[in-house]
Amino acid sequence: MENSLGRNLSAELLQKLAYQPYQTTDFGHPKIQRHAPMVTATTGNDKVVNSLKEVVQKTVRNGMTISFHHHFREGDFVFNKVMRIIIDAGYQDLTLAPSSLTNVMNDIVVEAIEKGVVTNITSSGMRGSLGDAISHGVLDNPVIFRSHGGRARAIEEGSLNIDVAFLGVPNADRLGNANGMNGKTAFGSLGYALIDAQYADKVVLITDNLQEYPNTPASIKQTQVDYVVPIEQVGDPDKIGSGATRFTKDPKELKIAKMVNQVIVNSPYFKEGFSFQTGSGGAALAVTRFLRESMLEKDIKASFALGGVTKPTVDLLEEGLIGRIMDVQDFDKGAAKSMHLNQNQQEIDASWYADPANKGAMVDQLDVAILSALEVDTDFNVNVMTGSDGVIRGAIGGHQDAATAKLTIICAPLVRGRIATIVPKVTTAVTPGASIDVIVTEIGIAINPKRTDLQQALAHVPGLVVYTIEQLQQKAEAIVGKAQPLQFKQRPVALVEYRDGTIIDEINEVQD
Amino acid sequence: MENSLGRNLSAELLQKLAYQPYQTTDFGHPKIQRHAPMVTATTGNDKVVNSLKEVVQKTVRNGMTISFHHHFREGDFVFNKVMRIIIDAGYQDLTLAPSSLTNVMNDIVVEAIEKGVVTNITSSGMRGSLGDAISHGVLDNPVIFRSHGGRARAIEEGSLNIDVAFLGVPNADRLGNANGMNGKTAFGSLGYALIDAQYADKVVLITDNLQEYPNTPASIKQTQVDYVVPIEQVGDPDKIGSGATRFTKDPKELKIAKMVNQVIVNSPYFKEGFSFQTGSGGAALAVTRFLRESMLEKDIKASFALGGVTKPTVDLLEEGLIGRIMDVQDFDKGAAKSMHLNQNQQEIDASWYADPANKGAMVDQLDVAILSALEVDTDFNVNVMTGSDGVIRGAIGGHQDAATAKLTIICAPLVRGRIATIVPKVTTAVTPGASIDVIVTEIGIAINPKRTDLQQALAHVPGLVVYTIEQLQQKAEAIVGKAQPLQFKQRPVALVEYRDGTIIDEINEVQD
Repeated sequence: MENSLGRNLSAELLQKLAYQPYQTTDFGHPKIQRHAPMVTATTGNDKVVNSLKEVVQKTVRNGMTISFHHHFREGDFVFNKVMRIIIDAGYQDLTLAPSSLTNVMNDIVVEAIEKGVVTNITSSGMRGSLGDAISHGVLDNPVIFRSHGGRARAIEEGSLNIDVAFLGVPNADRLGNANGMNGKTAFGSLGYALIDAQYADKVVLITDNLQEYPNTPASIKQTQVDYVVPIEQVGDPDKIGSGATRFTKDPKELKIAKMVNQVIVNSPYFKEGFSFQTGSGGAALAVTRFLRESMLEKDIKASFALGGVTKPTVDLLEEGLIGRIMDVQDFDKGAAKSMHLNQNQQEIDASWYADPANKGAMVDQLDVAILSALEVDTDFNVNVMTGSDGVIRGAIGGHQDAATAKLTIICAPLVRGRIATIVPKVTTAVTPGASIDVIVTEIGIAINPKRTDLQQALAHVPGLVVYTIEQLQQKAEAIVGKAQPLQFKQRPVALVEYRDGTIIDEINEVQD
Repeated sequence: MENSLGRNLSAELLQKLAYQPYQTTDFGHPKIQRHAPMVTATTGNDKVVNSLKEVVQKTVRNGMTISFHHHFREGDFVFNKVMRIIIDAGYQDLTLAPSSLTNVMNDIVVEAIEKGVVTNITSSGMRGSLGDAISHGVLDNPVIFRSHGGRARAIEEGSLNIDVAFLGVPNADRLGNANGMNGKTAFGSLGYALIDAQYADKVVLITDNLQEYPNTPASIKQTQVDYVVPIEQVGDPDKIGSGATRFTKDPKELKIAKMVNQVIVNSPYFKEGFSFQTGSGGAALAVTRFLRESMLEKDIKASFALGGVTKPTVDLLEEGLIGRIMDVQDFDKGAAKSMHLNQNQQEIDASWYADPANKGAMVDQLDVAILSALEVDTDFNVNVMTGSDGVIRGAIGGHQDAATAKLTIICAPLVRGRIATIVPKVTTAVTPGASIDVIVTEIGIAINPKRTDLQQALAHVPGLVVYTIEQLQQKAEAIVGKAQPLQFKQRPVALVEYRDGTIIDEINEVQD
């Protein structure tokens, strides 16, 4: 079976899991019966449980779906502590449904799979030893990859029904009022975790900072929380977010960033009240700097900046160049710190950020999105999930979601080492070419042919060389040569959902 | 049929409406499947509708349940404008489910009933011409009265399923991000409306203050809103909340307030970190003043104040005598104004405030509640709903909910004019005596006999004369004489739910 991108899908698997193949980026206006949790009423006086082991016993049963958030990133202690208890207790057949999996989680997930503790996984992505193990077929059932917006959609519509959410927080009171803003392990917005807190049947907060009741501001509310577990340390503050943000000195990245800025500034979207999402890569941060200069020069202010937030974006807010930051997660300490000081930095949940199935997500209002890629093909399809060896080492994140912006710019070097970035056909299609408008490489840009308006607007911009995507692909191939086609076994190890819940691609087991 | 308070209920009516009689104040720990709305997905770019008539046409169908909030109180323009259109369009068989009904809404509701437009009503209360008409049998189906917490419970469990919520707001952007804090008709907390925004299938915001997108802080979020209707004026700022709060000079109220303070200060609950809800009556405001003096004198600070908030309570927050204000509604401009300036004044929704069916409401954590009464009987049952003539002229509000506090104090004069307040049997039982601890009148107090601890603690407090409730009742009767028993027709015009959804009393049609 092929979907509308021509990606091969196992008809049998899709049927078994009641999936439809991807067809279009247009979500339409369906009526959707929202899911709601099964709650257990309480006055709330017995929520504090002094051991993780006890709270696991109280909540987890074989076959359940459990979730975590990834706001602590590589500084997360909660995931490993809880999973250690779950594995040692001998639970079986759990579905692991975190908002994403970071590298510190890899080894214990592999162990949980090998012991039959975890038999299903859904995540935004995975890397390292876990991605490797999955790509080599360690898990019987296919992993389901979802974007941040797609995960919110799945939870809200009930196709992902979380039994127990284990949510680490940098502060909480004895009833569960908590936020991500205060405490030594503060990470800023609780964006992804807010959906779990709202929809999971059982919500367990884990904190190293028990505050006096009532703890405000409450991003997670006592009405959502079943148990509060105080532990010694929920995370390593030094690894939660990068410290001081440094702009790239890589000349290739700077060149790309300058061109991205040229594309934005010369597009029809660069006008008073425009909006943008940049991200946290080296080039993206540099874009923020160039964009600032252009905004000052042309006296243009943005209505909002969206997404994973960094300090340079907060600086623009404080300078008055942006009206609001709509904040689903913070990538560095500066952004995390400013959240509770600035009421123009609004915490938003994953649904508000990006769910296509609600009454209007932030990404639907986005003018400009700057995204990265592992591969882009001549149909403008983007891969952010598998490496050139076919092994899983990436995450969808908000890629599919933000790509619905009016102007979606992919910035990527033409080649990385001996590997082409612009290719005839991506290894895994994650974001459909229909939602990509411009590719920016260090040698020039390519514009999606359906965007004749952009072709015209960007035709005569000084310093901006416009190629066709085929030309870029050929130039990449001229540098690194023709890649050998990858060989996969005919066995799907993962399905990639498009944000609407259809299947945009499948990932097969790699040949050894 | 009688419930556990010995109130006569129509077995036939309860059966027809699938109601159980009231039994106990203990809600227990049931598992409850929450209700969820049916949403229609959209990117949100077509939400602004420029006429109320058009939005009514788009959303309302015969037989639907529609809701409003009462945060504009007597300054509300929205309710009348929307109901005028609905009546003139000739809709039939609607259920009216506002958070409460204020006096400005009375006449149009009577008209809607008489024309068959509204055939069912649920509300916190009603007064004036509407209460009179209902008590005289104008509506075929019984009105369902619910407390603020009970309404949240009914909505969350799906027994009150709102099809369309019409919510007036003092600001909103074109996608529906709104709060109650800014704009000329600001009223502070959106507490009651937040539940409607979360659970109604269709949410219509009506505002006279369309803000640039995105509007923050967003108490109501764009993900919840279907339509935004800009109109000229949503309310009369001068009638929304009382202006400057004046302390009572009524010697009877001052006497009661002083005694209430004596009861609190000499109870076991007056210690560091205690919590309280006062309310907005003359005596209640005076209590706040006396309590402040006692807190300063004894160097005791409160962890939180709850409920309908007034400026004097905000003053205590700013003075550092209270840690937090948990704010479900603001009764005056001072309290409304301080909300967006003070992050220790946390906006809470009606569920968080008082829903017995969630994972812990604020009222469950409350030490001291000061409430009023139209009547109290010798079983300590309280009536806040019907007058001495049996006519509906009151509202449950948070009365049943806050009465779950550890120390619930009813302050009421012994008599009002020629009418006794302390009576052998209340006309309508709204809040069960089991949740009432102390009655304070101008001549002395009565303590619920089951509270032997309080009997002991308050036995020898200077200036505090302790009577039995029977003695108070007899003293009232000695002043005003024995009241003639009221005559009602054997026809229920309203059912009073206890906060758990059982029926605590029924109100019958009055004899003319």
